[in-house]
Amino acid sequence: MTGRAVTSLSNPTVKAVRALHLRKERDETGLFVAEGLKNVIEGVDTGHAPTILLYGRDAADHPLLRKAAQATAAAGGEVIEVTQDILAKVSRRDNPQAVVGVFQQVFRPLDTLEPLAAPCWVALHRVRDPGNLGTIVRTADAAGCGGVILVGECCDPYSVEAVRATMGSIFAVPLTRASESEFAAWREAWPGSVVGTLLSAPIDHRSADYRKPALILMGNEQQGLPPEMAALCDVNVKIPMRGRADSLNLSVATGIMIYAATA
Amino acid sequence: MTGRAVTSLSNPTVKAVRALHLRKERDETGLFVAEGLKNVIEGVDTGHAPTILLYGRDAADHPLLRKAAQATAAAGGEVIEVTQDILAKVSRRDNPQAVVGVFQQVFRPLDTLEPLAAPCWVALHRVRDPGNLGTIVRTADAAGCGGVILVGECCDPYSVEAVRATMGSIFAVPLTRASESEFAAWREAWPGSVVGTLLSAPIDHRSADYRKPALILMGNEQQGLPPEMAALCDVNVKIPMRGRADSLNLSVATGIMIYAATA
Repeated sequence: MTGRAVTSLSNPTVKAVRALHLRKERDETGLFVAEGLKNVIEGVDTGHAPTILLYGRDAADHPLLRKAAQATAAAGGEVIEVTQDILAKVSRRDNPQAVVGVFQQVFRPLDTLEPLAAPCWVALHRVRDPGNLGTIVRTADAAGCGGVILVGECCDPYSVEAVRATMGSIFAVPLTRASESEFAAWREAWPGSVVGTLLSAPIDHRSADYRKPALILMGNEQQGLPPEMAALCDVNVKIPMRGRADSLNLSVATGIMIYAATA
Repeated sequence: MTGRAVTSLSNPTVKAVRALHLRKERDETGLFVAEGLKNVIEGVDTGHAPTILLYGRDAADHPLLRKAAQATAAAGGEVIEVTQDILAKVSRRDNPQAVVGVFQQVFRPLDTLEPLAAPCWVALHRVRDPGNLGTIVRTADAAGCGGVILVGECCDPYSVEAVRATMGSIFAVPLTRASESEFAAWREAWPGSVVGTLLSAPIDHRSADYRKPALILMGNEQQGLPPEMAALCDVNVKIPMRGRADSLNLSVATGIMIYAATA
């Protein structure tokens, strides 16, 4: 394949893609970057055409690149061949992926979610770490969850770090944002169980009633669930701590809860 | 507290600590770096005195620093006050922790492990990612596992990235290294169940018999368990995949397995 070739870092499209490392830029444009042909194709296969597709010479002859390029062009996007140096700058890595796609962010409004469409949903309160958030999106996909709801001020699920950690699941899992008060009001009509994790809870996570659809509410890495969020749950449970560690990594704890709820 | 003060990056002790970012240097010296007063104290409280303790002026008056310094001095180690710049270079971070300790690595020989001492143990085959490995050590600690056995060529549990991810559990969880053949021979005498995860396994992970002590064997991030390792298990199980994602993050999958085994 031979697209338009760009070698300069001052090319406006290249500059626009690089700027997406900044949250402000992502918020203003509503765009994000997904790296690697596998992830770009995952986007295309789930109905998300890239608005920009950058590729290096190494990838030029890959049949899946052709498919991605066609989807990009059909949707009116730009397809550009770039140098290895540009790919490295765009991804901030010495050994960059040979393909980079820019996509539209999607957030579903809270009131459009259909709780009965899936047996399990995940809500995260003020999650901080993009690697954790991305890993949780991946787990939610693997477990067949209906979506991930970001409650309060959270890190950006569309940061490069979060998207990397999703391993392509960023395109598969519906994401929603809500303030604490919006979530509290919406939760009133939840047709199943709402289960929160709390280190001080007396009930083991295996003993809870995860009546479907189960909504798992997790606190953040530093504080866990604050009392006003824990109070929104039907039941608070704890994952037993039997050693010296007093907590689990958030993405591990969320994975254990999701699989407990969907057993 | 006022210890000997060092301001130069060419100070031999500072150079020796910085060199521990290299695996070769860690392997040759048998030392590793733990960052942060909380983690250093966790080491001291579990009987590991630092051989070197570096601290910044900000931490000089902390009572726990005094405790760490006393433990270091009592064991014949060096206590040195350093500049913010040195701390940043040692940790390769713009906002470094104010305390850094250097400790002796500990690996338990395979034949000294006591399987009956804990209900669950973890073996990892050729694990690649230090963040995953550290997070698994943290989970093993939280769940009260007996230890983590690294089978075949693995990433280094004593790298800075792995130690960070353990959140202090590096001092609490016994670590063991074994070749594939050593592990296979040792496993023959295992008194409980050996359970491996395999995407192609027909049995759900919740249905297995985790006869205590349960030894959970996990494959690596890229390939999972190869056939010859899967064959060492009493049973292979799968964590069900219900969405588009075809795998879980390794540390999440291991957490789900550990808590399934210790329910």
